[in-house]
Amino acid sequence: MENRLFFRDEKRLFEDKKRLISKIDKERTHIGYYNLPQQNIDSILELTDAYDESIETIVVLGIGGSSLGAKAIYEFLKPMAQLKRELVFFESTDPLNIMNQLNHIDMKKTHFLVISKSGGTVETLSIFKYIFASNQNSESYTFITDRGSNLEKFAKDIDAKVLYLPDNVGGRFSVLSVVGLFPLALCGVDIKALLKGADEICDSFFNDGKFKNVLLEKALFYAKNQRRYNINCIFAYSETLEYFTQWYVQLWGESLGKKQRHSSFNVGLTPIGLIGPKDQHSFLQLIMEGTRDKSVTFIKLQEFEHKLYIPDISLKHLESLDILNGISFHDLLTMQCDSVIEALKNEKDVPLDEIRLPRVDANSIGALIYYYELLTSLVGELLDVNTYNQPGVEAGKIILKEKLENL
Amino acid sequence: MENRLFFRDEKRLFEDKKRLISKIDKERTHIGYYNLPQQNIDSILELTDAYDESIETIVVLGIGGSSLGAKAIYEFLKPMAQLKRELVFFESTDPLNIMNQLNHIDMKKTHFLVISKSGGTVETLSIFKYIFASNQNSESYTFITDRGSNLEKFAKDIDAKVLYLPDNVGGRFSVLSVVGLFPLALCGVDIKALLKGADEICDSFFNDGKFKNVLLEKALFYAKNQRRYNINCIFAYSETLEYFTQWYVQLWGESLGKKQRHSSFNVGLTPIGLIGPKDQHSFLQLIMEGTRDKSVTFIKLQEFEHKLYIPDISLKHLESLDILNGISFHDLLTMQCDSVIEALKNEKDVPLDEIRLPRVDANSIGALIYYYELLTSLVGELLDVNTYNQPGVEAGKIILKEKLENL
Repeated sequence: MENRLFFRDEKRLFEDKKRLISKIDKERTHIGYYNLPQQNIDSILELTDAYDESIETIVVLGIGGSSLGAKAIYEFLKPMAQLKRELVFFESTDPLNIMNQLNHIDMKKTHFLVISKSGGTVETLSIFKYIFASNQNSESYTFITDRGSNLEKFAKDIDAKVLYLPDNVGGRFSVLSVVGLFPLALCGVDIKALLKGADEICDSFFNDGKFKNVLLEKALFYAKNQRRYNINCIFAYSETLEYFTQWYVQLWGESLGKKQRHSSFNVGLTPIGLIGPKDQHSFLQLIMEGTRDKSVTFIKLQEFEHKLYIPDISLKHLESLDILNGISFHDLLTMQCDSVIEALKNEKDVPLDEIRLPRVDANSIGALIYYYELLTSLVGELLDVNTYNQPGVEAGKIILKEKLENL
Repeated sequence: MENRLFFRDEKRLFEDKKRLISKIDKERTHIGYYNLPQQNIDSILELTDAYDESIETIVVLGIGGSSLGAKAIYEFLKPMAQLKRELVFFESTDPLNIMNQLNHIDMKKTHFLVISKSGGTVETLSIFKYIFASNQNSESYTFITDRGSNLEKFAKDIDAKVLYLPDNVGGRFSVLSVVGLFPLALCGVDIKALLKGADEICDSFFNDGKFKNVLLEKALFYAKNQRRYNINCIFAYSETLEYFTQWYVQLWGESLGKKQRHSSFNVGLTPIGLIGPKDQHSFLQLIMEGTRDKSVTFIKLQEFEHKLYIPDISLKHLESLDILNGISFHDLLTMQCDSVIEALKNEKDVPLDEIRLPRVDANSIGALIYYYELLTSLVGELLDVNTYNQPGVEAGKIILKEKLENL
């Protein structure tokens, strides 16, 4: 993976960087996600091997941090890899979704992973109840939850398998823990390569590699300019990254949108996920000529295995399009991305950078995920927020509970 | 449809409103989309009836304004209506998409609608070339383009059917023209009801109905507070509205992100589409506690035909969730939405409003679409931009052309 910044703070940031590193080093001693790339995954792999070969579909019953990470990785890899099982996510209480999804699975060949850190997530447990009412075979379920939760107790009561989240790993930082690794491993994703990709970024950042400086500079720029550039877009030139951008939206929005620790002032940065070239025909105009309140990170794939070419035919009256003839769609995609970057470089006040992923594989997406987790931690530290909690969503939950009790 | 605003400008806006109405009345004489609800659709319906019953799939080759509107309506209605044909959208040059989508259609039972206003859209024409290379039967294609475009000439040359966009209707305002109506009618969507829904909003706005004031107040608030609230979220509590939010993102972003007419200053408002309850577990924290730079419009469905209930079972150790028992998933969804609205009302400085759609039908979505088109026109006028062009995307196109020529 490569990352080039096209912006730069004028001021020397040496002191800022030093302070930031020392804070992150301290955080690393107790925030669990930092060290996930180095975890031992033997037990996950062993467990995976023990699952019945007749299982063709893995359903994740989970929402937010319990689904978005695995979904991002699965959907990135699916079109290119021959995965051995299908992975399906039930993440909504929308009856339409539930109906549609249940219609598409064969219950007898399906295993359900019920994932809820707290063990009490309304959406997840409602759907679980719905499914459990018609299939009470405990072998159809594996539960992933915090040690000591009521969901763990229930699972033990029905003699179902339970896996535990590691300590101090929040939901949206949990994709490289059992929460993401287990469903992915069941589908045949190379989770070793995934962690190796993450570890490359981790090692590079903590051991003076090339990502140390780029991450520090990017974080400092975003945090220092949070009022001016309150919107951070990712513009990914591959449909495979669509769910990655959704994962990013949760990670960035939920981690950074907070009251400040020392002032209780409301701060935050707004994430936006875009897919090229589709969104050139939607959002690009706003980036090019709209208010200068957005940074943009372009992500592109350097290699793409399956080549598809624009045929070498000329259409009468449309000869001007013959310049496209013989070009691969992937090269066209890359040229479209480069053209937009060049055009934007000519505009003032739009901070740009570019991330290149070598190819569609587990290593690349592991690196990209860890890169964004680190960036989020760095910016969170600079914004003076608690990056790892989400107190703002509690108020709605309490009101919902009251409504339910008053029915 | 109903719309309640939970914010209000303190100042009397009588003069502002009067001025705005007179400008919109003037625009209505030459901007084509305003009068689409009253168009005669007999010819579209006749043409639709003439299509071969053996056609099972309609593929739209189009991007941005040529696809997002029809997609929004089709995806909204699909789960509830028994539509007679499948509608598929090829909107990207991403080779993965093209491969996947071609693998899923039966070419012999497919009709292609090639939609490009200018007739020269690179993405659309590239994919068209790819498909045309293997199927040169002109009866497989219908072209929708501007009168006089090169695509029209090509279509006539191969003896294919051509339909024309009405005058002065831009791509992103074209869903209620032949661009959206024709593919939808081919699939059996009740386009009369669609236009009737749009006409109800149109009539209400232009003839002193209930939507006149609400639209004016909302537009004035958004425009006057564009620096402070530069982000406008739609939070829709139904998966059926996911593609509607994508249509909204293009409409809002591409219409309002502009240099001002009289100052060439960069202005704009950033659209964000959210789906509940999923995004309660992603974006809500940022709305609740983040920077006060966002307005939020909640959209909910009042009725939902297909009921699915949470079963009346109690799970050991999870008895606290028994309050959910016997509730329909749709009612839970509505309560979740209401709970979030209530929680947000307790926060300061988050401008809220609520739109209620009576049900999943063509009338409702027609009304919602026209409501947002009008709102966009009103805000565009107040921001002093040309709402209907998109000059900012040209620079990238020129660079791409140079790159292609230099290959």
